[in-house]
Amino acid sequence: MSSFSKTARNRVKRLSKRAAYDRAVIYPIVDEALICHVGFVQDGQPLVIPMIHARDGDTLYLHGAKASRLLKHGQSDQPLCITATLLDGIVFARSIFHHSMNYRSAVLFGCGRLVAAEPEKLRALEVLAEHIARGRWRDVRQPSRKELNATSVVAVSIESASAKVRSGPPLDDEEDYALPIWAGVLPLEQRALKAIDDPRLVEGVAVPEYAIHLFRLS
Amino acid sequence: MSSFSKTARNRVKRLSKRAAYDRAVIYPIVDEALICHVGFVQDGQPLVIPMIHARDGDTLYLHGAKASRLLKHGQSDQPLCITATLLDGIVFARSIFHHSMNYRSAVLFGCGRLVAAEPEKLRALEVLAEHIARGRWRDVRQPSRKELNATSVVAVSIESASAKVRSGPPLDDEEDYALPIWAGVLPLEQRALKAIDDPRLVEGVAVPEYAIHLFRLS
Repeated sequence: MSSFSKTARNRVKRLSKRAAYDRAVIYPIVDEALICHVGFVQDGQPLVIPMIHARDGDTLYLHGAKASRLLKHGQSDQPLCITATLLDGIVFARSIFHHSMNYRSAVLFGCGRLVAAEPEKLRALEVLAEHIARGRWRDVRQPSRKELNATSVVAVSIESASAKVRSGPPLDDEEDYALPIWAGVLPLEQRALKAIDDPRLVEGVAVPEYAIHLFRLS
Repeated sequence: MSSFSKTARNRVKRLSKRAAYDRAVIYPIVDEALICHVGFVQDGQPLVIPMIHARDGDTLYLHGAKASRLLKHGQSDQPLCITATLLDGIVFARSIFHHSMNYRSAVLFGCGRLVAAEPEKLRALEVLAEHIARGRWRDVRQPSRKELNATSVVAVSIESASAKVRSGPPLDDEEDYALPIWAGVLPLEQRALKAIDDPRLVEGVAVPEYAIHLFRLS
């Protein structure tokens, strides 16, 4: 794991003490997030769309009905910006000015290309399925050729990236610490609740291990 | 509450049966989300940044260290795209092809302008504070003139918008329903845990009502 070079594109401009350029900081954020927000430009207008993603080394796969829309006229090499954010808490300070959020966010830059070859498409779908729930890929009906053709997957070579992290208590102005105002952190977590069986589930089919637990996702 | 007209900009291109253009659908999603992802264009490169937001009628206020970066050279009328996404569940289908997420997302379009007048900036900060925790504004030390000057708030007049919602069980191909594969939904929720007092809190200051409960946020 190495670092991305700081360039005009990925340099964190404000509060740069919270910034990181190491893959070892950036990639765990990408991998923990269940969705990402993908930004692209269409006729000068920015568009931001939530999508399912999964990382395979320095490649990020994006999946969704709109995947092909990320690429203008099906053309490759459209610049994309992909942001994954994990919200960890609300930071209540004594002054309104120092209120904040505890979060971990990763911003990735690269160009998108439509995955065309069947072996790479299959690999991408496997990585995407396993990102959502490890073990799912081997449990499900594999895609037919027709389904594979109907599926758009975009691959992004991660050329540049940065992360930004805030954690810990509020940081108030020194003179404000004496104020009788409550300050602290309200931690936030994203959790999964009890799995709900599909109404048409074949009788006797058990919920798999990866969907049983009320696990904490972030 | 009325609808936004469908135009080339906000029209949901794929799976349009999940789309909505009514303020009555779009705005509750914006209001429930604790953060949004703001997209803008800088020298042809899309950028997506997580930010704190709050809505005041048809105006969206954006706050954050980077707010001013949204506006090129401080210029107003930069086109922005602001997306708020609430993740409600993971949808496990029998086939890999029909896996999905249950979610509610809102995509807003408008141009940003830096809020300069002090009364509007104060109003924006109040709306932002109340969006995070209703009742917080009156509890905290109000901003000084110096802090107000150091605060960047961007106002976006919401010109166009759309929402997309998926809910309910997976939708498999008819012949797949007989397969002995578990299918269903793993509901997701974002929760707040027990509030953590700041280590330097004045003794005897109680956690306010709005931060006591392990409330469900989405």
